[in-house]
Amino acid sequence: MSDDTDARHAEKMRKIKAARDKMMQTKTEEKGLIMVHTGPGKGKSSSGFGMIMRCIAHEMPCAVVQFIKGNWDTGEKTFLRERFADECQFIVSGEGFTWETQDRARDVAAAEAGWAKAKELILNPDIQFVMLDEINIALRYDYLNIDEVVEFLLTQKPQMTHVLLTGRNAKPELIEAADLVTEMSLIKHPFRDGIKAQVGVEF
Amino acid sequence: MSDDTDARHAEKMRKIKAARDKMMQTKTEEKGLIMVHTGPGKGKSSSGFGMIMRCIAHEMPCAVVQFIKGNWDTGEKTFLRERFADECQFIVSGEGFTWETQDRARDVAAAEAGWAKAKELILNPDIQFVMLDEINIALRYDYLNIDEVVEFLLTQKPQMTHVLLTGRNAKPELIEAADLVTEMSLIKHPFRDGIKAQVGVEF
Repeated sequence: MSDDTDARHAEKMRKIKAARDKMMQTKTEEKGLIMVHTGPGKGKSSSGFGMIMRCIAHEMPCAVVQFIKGNWDTGEKTFLRERFADECQFIVSGEGFTWETQDRARDVAAAEAGWAKAKELILNPDIQFVMLDEINIALRYDYLNIDEVVEFLLTQKPQMTHVLLTGRNAKPELIEAADLVTEMSLIKHPFRDGIKAQVGVEF
Repeated sequence: MSDDTDARHAEKMRKIKAARDKMMQTKTEEKGLIMVHTGPGKGKSSSGFGMIMRCIAHEMPCAVVQFIKGNWDTGEKTFLRERFADECQFIVSGEGFTWETQDRARDVAAAEAGWAKAKELILNPDIQFVMLDEINIALRYDYLNIDEVVEFLLTQKPQMTHVLLTGRNAKPELIEAADLVTEMSLIKHPFRDGIKAQVGVEF
């Protein structure tokens, strides 16, 4: 690379830095966020667990309520329960995917129990981050009432507490209420080529 | 809910389970995946760290090479270096975002050093998962040669090793070569309302 190109690069980067620094000066507010990870792609739950890792690192007490993935032995459940039980409460309310149980009344009861526990954790002033994993599935099938969930989040969530709600097909009411919504889209997936869910990657 | 609705629900769920079980029987192959997380939304790196959590839980040795986010004190860096140095090597090759350094030659040298280390980790038969965090930025600015990276992944990566490449603007050559590509899209972001990057959520 010539000196000329290097100089132009330095000038361009200087301008980007100035613009970015100026923009960042306007970002001064802190508040607890209502976050949603939705869409058909990978990463909705795993990025939540990445945030849980960050919370533990920063000594922010946190909690996970799993609504649907009940009886799987996932890496994240083992990891958090065995090594970080003090830092992160890990609650399981579901009992496997709903098509495994084939019993709507039991699914509704499990979802309601999970939501009761979720409210308790969110209201706990010591807990700063609560992940409601796969709650969107419970909302989609009307195991939980969307209006009640949204109203609780908007009116009763402590101001500085972050709540992350994951799962496909997030309801429009939740997206409307949320501060941060990310959609994970599937561009390419190895399932199409006969590759099964693999340890470390999917669970 | 009436008994009739419950019965219809059970029947519908039975059919979904049968279809799903049949589909899953065709997913039998295992292989090390080339995975890409791209797009402007949140969750590209954090879901990678969620997968690192899963690997540690399953006692799969893993590694992270960070190409761009060099000198930040992120939660994930603290967490993995202080608590899981044996399970997960954590290499930093970058020295902050490129607009912070304003020195292209130094950025290129840092990216090349990171890529050399990445190749060594990927070729190490004891390591099962390697995350190349923000390498797409280094590729986008041509700090690294995309053809060389893709050729290495396709021809030299051990068959069972997973490699995850993150960052916006993944190059088409990489998407073509990958087994699994997820795009994180921004539906709503609190930056727009003046909220700054917050501990536990963003770093």
